[in-house]
Amino acid sequence: MPFPDLVHPAIDAYESAVAMPADFAEFWATTIAEARALGGAVAMVPAETTLRLVEVFDVTFPGFGGHPVKGWLALPRARAGRLPLVAQYVGYGGGRGFPHEQLHWAASGFAYFRMDTRGQGSGWSTGATPDPVGSTGQVPGVMTKGILDRNDYYYRRLFTDGVRAIDALADLDFIDPARIAVCGGSQGGGISLAVAGIDSRVKAVMPDVPFLCDFPRAVRVAGRDPYLEIVRFLAQHRDKAARVFETLRYFDGVNFARQSKAAGLFSVALMDDVCPPSTIYGAYKAFAGADKTLIEYEFNNHEGGGPFQEREQMAWLTRRFATPEGANGA
Amino acid sequence: MPFPDLVHPAIDAYESAVAMPADFAEFWATTIAEARALGGAVAMVPAETTLRLVEVFDVTFPGFGGHPVKGWLALPRARAGRLPLVAQYVGYGGGRGFPHEQLHWAASGFAYFRMDTRGQGSGWSTGATPDPVGSTGQVPGVMTKGILDRNDYYYRRLFTDGVRAIDALADLDFIDPARIAVCGGSQGGGISLAVAGIDSRVKAVMPDVPFLCDFPRAVRVAGRDPYLEIVRFLAQHRDKAARVFETLRYFDGVNFARQSKAAGLFSVALMDDVCPPSTIYGAYKAFAGADKTLIEYEFNNHEGGGPFQEREQMAWLTRRFATPEGANGA
Amino acid sequence: MPFPDLVHPAIDAYESAVAMPADFAEFWATTIAEARALGGAVAMVPAETTLRLVEVFDVTFPGFGGHPVKGWLALPRARAGRLPLVAQYVGYGGGRGFPHEQLHWAASGFAYFRMDTRGQGSGWSTGATPDPVGSTGQVPGVMTKGILDRNDYYYRRLFTDGVRAIDALADLDFIDPARIAVCGGSQGGGISLAVAGIDSRVKAVMPDVPFLCDFPRAVRVAGRDPYLEIVRFLAQHRDKAARVFETLRYFDGVNFARQSKAAGLFSVALMDDVCPPSTIYGAYKAFAGADKTLIEYEFNNHEGGGPFQEREQMAWLTRRFATPEGANGA
Amino acid sequence: MPFPDLVHPAIDAYESAVAMPADFAEFWATTIAEARALGGAVAMVPAETTLRLVEVFDVTFPGFGGHPVKGWLALPRARAGRLPLVAQYVGYGGGRGFPHEQLHWAASGFAYFRMDTRGQGSGWSTGATPDPVGSTGQVPGVMTKGILDRNDYYYRRLFTDGVRAIDALADLDFIDPARIAVCGGSQGGGISLAVAGIDSRVKAVMPDVPFLCDFPRAVRVAGRDPYLEIVRFLAQHRDKAARVFETLRYFDGVNFARQSKAAGLFSVALMDDVCPPSTIYGAYKAFAGADKTLIEYEFNNHEGGGPFQEREQMAWLTRRFATPEGANGA
Amino acid sequence: MPFPDLVHPAIDAYESAVAMPADFAEFWATTIAEARALGGAVAMVPAETTLRLVEVFDVTFPGFGGHPVKGWLALPRARAGRLPLVAQYVGYGGGRGFPHEQLHWAASGFAYFRMDTRGQGSGWSTGATPDPVGSTGQVPGVMTKGILDRNDYYYRRLFTDGVRAIDALADLDFIDPARIAVCGGSQGGGISLAVAGIDSRVKAVMPDVPFLCDFPRAVRVAGRDPYLEIVRFLAQHRDKAARVFETLRYFDGVNFARQSKAAGLFSVALMDDVCPPSTIYGAYKAFAGADKTLIEYEFNNHEGGGPFQEREQMAWLTRRFATPEGANGA
Amino acid sequence: MPFPDLVHPAIDAYESAVAMPADFAEFWATTIAEARALGGAVAMVPAETTLRLVEVFDVTFPGFGGHPVKGWLALPRARAGRLPLVAQYVGYGGGRGFPHEQLHWAASGFAYFRMDTRGQGSGWSTGATPDPVGSTGQVPGVMTKGILDRNDYYYRRLFTDGVRAIDALADLDFIDPARIAVCGGSQGGGISLAVAGIDSRVKAVMPDVPFLCDFPRAVRVAGRDPYLEIVRFLAQHRDKAARVFETLRYFDGVNFARQSKAAGLFSVALMDDVCPPSTIYGAYKAFAGADKTLIEYEFNNHEGGGPFQEREQMAWLTRRFATPEGANGA
Repeated sequence: MPFPDLVHPAIDAYESAVAMPADFAEFWATTIAEARALGGAVAMVPAETTLRLVEVFDVTFPGFGGHPVKGWLALPRARAGRLPLVAQYVGYGGGRGFPHEQLHWAASGFAYFRMDTRGQGSGWSTGATPDPVGSTGQVPGVMTKGILDRNDYYYRRLFTDGVRAIDALADLDFIDPARIAVCGGSQGGGISLAVAGIDSRVKAVMPDVPFLCDFPRAVRVAGRDPYLEIVRFLAQHRDKAARVFETLRYFDGVNFARQSKAAGLFSVALMDDVCPPSTIYGAYKAFAGADKTLIEYEFNNHEGGGPFQEREQMAWLTRRFATPEGANGA
Repeated sequence: MPFPDLVHPAIDAYESAVAMPADFAEFWATTIAEARALGGAVAMVPAETTLRLVEVFDVTFPGFGGHPVKGWLALPRARAGRLPLVAQYVGYGGGRGFPHEQLHWAASGFAYFRMDTRGQGSGWSTGATPDPVGSTGQVPGVMTKGILDRNDYYYRRLFTDGVRAIDALADLDFIDPARIAVCGGSQGGGISLAVAGIDSRVKAVMPDVPFLCDFPRAVRVAGRDPYLEIVRFLAQHRDKAARVFETLRYFDGVNFARQSKAAGLFSVALMDDVCPPSTIYGAYKAFAGADKTLIEYEFNNHEGGGPFQEREQMAWLTRRFATPEGANGA
Repeated sequence: MPFPDLVHPAIDAYESAVAMPADFAEFWATTIAEARALGGAVAMVPAETTLRLVEVFDVTFPGFGGHPVKGWLALPRARAGRLPLVAQYVGYGGGRGFPHEQLHWAASGFAYFRMDTRGQGSGWSTGATPDPVGSTGQVPGVMTKGILDRNDYYYRRLFTDGVRAIDALADLDFIDPARIAVCGGSQGGGISLAVAGIDSRVKAVMPDVPFLCDFPRAVRVAGRDPYLEIVRFLAQHRDKAARVFETLRYFDGVNFARQSKAAGLFSVALMDDVCPPSTIYGAYKAFAGADKTLIEYEFNNHEGGGPFQEREQMAWLTRRFATPEGANGA
Repeated sequence: MPFPDLVHPAIDAYESAVAMPADFAEFWATTIAEARALGGAVAMVPAETTLRLVEVFDVTFPGFGGHPVKGWLALPRARAGRLPLVAQYVGYGGGRGFPHEQLHWAASGFAYFRMDTRGQGSGWSTGATPDPVGSTGQVPGVMTKGILDRNDYYYRRLFTDGVRAIDALADLDFIDPARIAVCGGSQGGGISLAVAGIDSRVKAVMPDVPFLCDFPRAVRVAGRDPYLEIVRFLAQHRDKAARVFETLRYFDGVNFARQSKAAGLFSVALMDDVCPPSTIYGAYKAFAGADKTLIEYEFNNHEGGGPFQEREQMAWLTRRFATPEGANGA
Repeated sequence: MPFPDLVHPAIDAYESAVAMPADFAEFWATTIAEARALGGAVAMVPAETTLRLVEVFDVTFPGFGGHPVKGWLALPRARAGRLPLVAQYVGYGGGRGFPHEQLHWAASGFAYFRMDTRGQGSGWSTGATPDPVGSTGQVPGVMTKGILDRNDYYYRRLFTDGVRAIDALADLDFIDPARIAVCGGSQGGGISLAVAGIDSRVKAVMPDVPFLCDFPRAVRVAGRDPYLEIVRFLAQHRDKAARVFETLRYFDGVNFARQSKAAGLFSVALMDDVCPPSTIYGAYKAFAGADKTLIEYEFNNHEGGGPFQEREQMAWLTRRFATPEGANGA
Repeated sequence: MPFPDLVHPAIDAYESAVAMPADFAEFWATTIAEARALGGAVAMVPAETTLRLVEVFDVTFPGFGGHPVKGWLALPRARAGRLPLVAQYVGYGGGRGFPHEQLHWAASGFAYFRMDTRGQGSGWSTGATPDPVGSTGQVPGVMTKGILDRNDYYYRRLFTDGVRAIDALADLDFIDPARIAVCGGSQGGGISLAVAGIDSRVKAVMPDVPFLCDFPRAVRVAGRDPYLEIVRFLAQHRDKAARVFETLRYFDGVNFARQSKAAGLFSVALMDDVCPPSTIYGAYKAFAGADKTLIEYEFNNHEGGGPFQEREQMAWLTRRFATPEGANGA
């Protein structure tokens, strides 16, 4: 059966059982505060491209541990006033790539930031951001990198980078700090949920087929990587399951969703065997924002809604961050 | 061994043995003349998008048989004078998709046209153009659709559409007819070679990992579809190989290359088992244009140079179709 | 688990939920009437074979649109009186092949007709019948050929061919019009159900692991092609599911079954992941003929009962179409 | 590259290097003599079928060790005089199946015998013949059953059965002992070569894509089972390669071919990765019969020529075993 | 979903429905008695190794039918008094291998015997024991070897070998007959259950992810070989399912478990698609020994607990077969 | 063809073309000196096991950067005088596992050390050693971890650990520093070659199917991971091939082999598509030790000689490190 997980009506009744740690908010508040305390400057260098309508900056900002993190910031070359910001996080294995690869947000009049992913950026697009931190023994990939301790877990650093990216951009004079959205597909969706759950400056979040949600179910339902990295780890470290799931509670999209007040536009695919749909329903149902929508693609696997969903997002966000016609863009 | 085909130095010595039919040029001249004789109007309807920097038209033009063929035409909304044109043809199975999916040419100041592919547009992106012509018995896909007679072969219609697209656009008042380029990856690369071989208005051609080249070798070396559609057909129709290869001579990128005088920027990937690199070397070597370059990606399969090659193309074409700074675009 | 679908006892309780369109019968009556109105002659040419006991004719008859459709008619060379007729339709991708490939019906004293399949006949056996009709954008194969409109759908033509084959043969002087049976495996089973549902001259139908039944469930349960062609189409055309399923209602074996009064001998395989067994139970339960039997093969995938089922069929049909010993055959 | 082995022109120059053991002929003469010395009766029981044109007998004859071996003998029910005989041996894993499964030889006026394969008959068709002999440690399948000693090797028994089948049939009063042919595909082709190499009563041999030829090359070139059973055996029994290849020399189709004086109609497929084409060229070139033909299918894998080759065979053998029109058959 | 079978809580409620034949105990009592009646001597030859701490004997003992069966007996070279015995049976396809491959039992002060598996010993480790008995038609492997009659079934011979191994060792003057344990993984686990169910001298049994349990469910749930050998057999022999399952009742680990009074340490893996966990729960629940423990590995496939479980076993068995410190071993 | 690489006679003529950097020896001398300069203590804690014949210590020693690295040291419990040492390094992804998993060296009278692999130890056996160093963007696994700079490359740390392990053990009073051997399979073989090339205290090296040899050829010939990690990296980082191969020269087993004077016992498998045999021939031919042997397994893939090779090693090393009978061990 092509459906790897619950279907209707069973999926409608599903609620994630992920437990919220008592110190969840505190853990993240402390983590972000520590990163901010390290300070560090933001560098913005104009990128060399053939693009005439769009201006691109090569941004370097201080992320977790003050480590330098890269990103592309693309803006309409002809602009006026402060622009709404869309920050996008990238899917598993990829990097920020080249500036010309994603132009629809900038071409629609947004400031668009694509954050690089530390230590990844080699699997399906390139990146330029190291992860200067090692790990206890792990399976290839980042899912089990530092998984035995929540302070060492890879995603503690990556989620912090996601928040610090907002720090780097929110106060620029061409950005409107009241109109900040985050988005991303798969891992990028998971990061966007985390950032929206930690940082209340984020007013809209658009996670597509988000990864990193409802771990206890996800690792038991997913049919393909990367969740299965955790399964392979536990298949060897047969005595460490409790410790692993204890760590993962602090990184679960369900728990971040419970903390977010942003507007949310989620997407889910019922044939997705990478990010099982029930785990996304779990996060969506837990999402505390009042203005939330879930778009379902019944016959898609992890590619999800693809350009259909991008169109939905452009329309949805344009409605929410509306600006007078002509205020920015051509 | 990950290399499915010849490597250096053997590949340097390879020359395609595809025979040029005596009536090749005549066959195509007649085909195009017949299509033009059917006339038909070009319709251009503004497309609804959120894009502010780029204006998009939903174009319908008469292709082979006068059949309506679709395409998106994307232009800098702020423009002045005539723009150079880049027409892109799409890879196997796909369609023109949505206008926001490919914006780097328009954002770089070009008029960019993405032609839909008749009867395809369902495999990895959507299309909206029927192929109203049937076929003798075939294997699934279009590779053997009408393959027993050169007049009935699917690609006769599709290549004609490619030329008729130029007909539809060349005379628009915001297009510069002296600066027309065609491009495409895989099948799109094959179409672009065909159009550049038929239509001398085309001044630059940029085929990436082109398909539809050097058929006799390609069907015997390729390790994956779609060339293998032909193998499967011949595995059943064990008595029809001669007839099949007789047809294919009229559609071989090597023969189109022998006829083209455009500037050419090719790309090839040495681990490509869809479009074997020797077949692309075959076309490249046969290419009659004086200004030609081949960029090789040693460690890539059919994804080829991806965004690296797009950057090469934007730089290469900008140099060739240079316009005074600020003449078009922002 | 090797069982891709419901098993006992759940499968016993399954009833198809396919809706019968109000104009289903009318749609097919009109379709057949239009085809018949086009007329056209039947040609029967003796086929060249080494066979001595069996005489074979190469038959060409007018199918849908009056298009010429081929078939082999094999008869005992020594015969007397009118013979019962078995018309067989062919599985997905195949064609009528060679006359010597299937001889057990003729060797058992039946007139045996194997109808070619328009536009297929290249995947696992050869055919010689074109499908001269094109399509809107589709995925490779015929499952989505014309699927957006019931009048354009490929199977409207093929099912009509199936009925027109009976038209072509029923009145031959060596055929007994009161003893007409249809059969086929997989797609051939689906066609035989359709013909038995449309044409009351058919007195017995023997569908093996029939395809084209209970589409809404089939496309959601099948694990392999060809049902998945529809899934792939909908994965791209994310906005067209309703339209697709609206079309499919007119071609669903469950609805044809509801209309048939023939005797029926079905077979089903519980490990079939091409034609899920529940979909066949759905058709079998809906089958309106009073004399019906379902033979189940628990440990088979789509090969079903194979020669075991052929033996069942020969015995079952011989009992129903019994002729005095020696009336026909050697 | 879909060609798993040599192609033209290299394959034309290939000659098998298999050594002929000095006592090869003696080994087989002794083996057959011992089997004959055990005697045993042939039983022929009419088979129950619905077939009217063809009469079928369920034959049991004494094979190697006097073990009972089964087969179906199918004859035109209306016959006169002695019929030419075609004995067919079955491919790997299969058995004789049901009588109605292969009728084209009987329908063409031949006596047709399909011999069951001891101990197999469960993989893709059914059989009813045990192999009552055990083995030293082996990998699943029969390729390494008893492989450490030529007297114990499985194929010693099976090839002997093949000869003893001819013994059982040659003297029946409706069989013409001067017109005996053997055939088979894959393993059946290997057996037919062996029988034609041992038994001079066989006047024609038609091996299709024959297995069991040129072992030293075959096990090193084949990409799929069953030759790879030997590779897997040697991968564990790392010290037994010499012993294994010593045994195999006595069972190599190349050596049998060197001994045969029959007319030969071979087929080979250039994309065959089960029975690599060079190994078949090896046997064909070594074949000592003066009247020999090799039909090549370039684009086929192990399915080879399929029904195309059957047509060739029927025509080829009918020419060689010609009988006055009407002498047998209807 | 990576879990191929029931999970908690459903698996807790599962009880095997395998029927106990009325003559089960008698069948095995007779079988063993017949084997013992054939007598035969046990040979023990010192094995040549570089091992200094461990002494190894190459043992040959009479198994089923008096056939010679091999095994390695490894003992601490420095020993005193009678040693507890651990007999291990080997997984599917393997053989006893080399003496140095498994030393942890001998190094822990046990007499350790690894029995060879008749007719296997070629798939992943080597063996040296023939199975001199043939079979009716079967699929490759031993699962269907002789399966149509319980007296001919392969496992009748192998399980008898397992008991006869205990016969061969129990009375040696350095073995303590009151401390005999059997163990094994997969097929070896199945054999150990059988031996513990037949032979009351066995005081402890340690089956890991045991095979050969709860056949009716196992063949319907397993996703990989070797249970699927039976499925493939039944897919061809469509009329023999009842006969096959009638045989298998006499070889089912659930029935052996119902007869055993030994202490039991089982292991099971919830992602095991070779030996589905429910079938092991079925055997464990049926196990009649009062002292029983099941260790579950949630995230493992058929590799199960691996070295983790070996550690459990060494500790568990050392507690049960405790000897005064220093009584044996260094 | 199952042979993924050169076979005889071509492989006999193969010589690696890997260039030796002028500062190769200096690079490694400096690296080791820096590590030693960091000092750090060796801890040896008795491990808890049930083993009576073998004593095991849980060793922690300072590796690269002074980072703590783990290993098991297993010795005959009854011993006298200084023991020869065998240090084994572990294959890709694994860790040191449990002490009872490999006992044949200790049981043969050797001191046996199994070094853990930093940051791995999760793929097929467990480890307990972190790699506390991060990386620039990489593909999952360690092959591209830090690959853009030879000082950052992962294997600089791991090879240094291998030498530091010898440092930790060579001076223990029960170890004979004149009889030190290193060994390992695959990655372990690569490490052992590196250590033997750097550290002249190593008198014998036994690399099995060694990985990390002849990189430029290996990454172009290997058919499976982990060499393909580098291919995937270069498929994205299309501009970094020169830099990657510049780094790899400093880690190539061919270059280490050129520096070693130890006795060498290599093994190679001709069907190995993980570590292509030509790359191992490349290292073997370059190996500068006078006493060298290569054992070839023709029909094996990456499992190589398995227990056959272990037997060869025990005999080979026992001959070279001979001790008077009874000097150690029982």
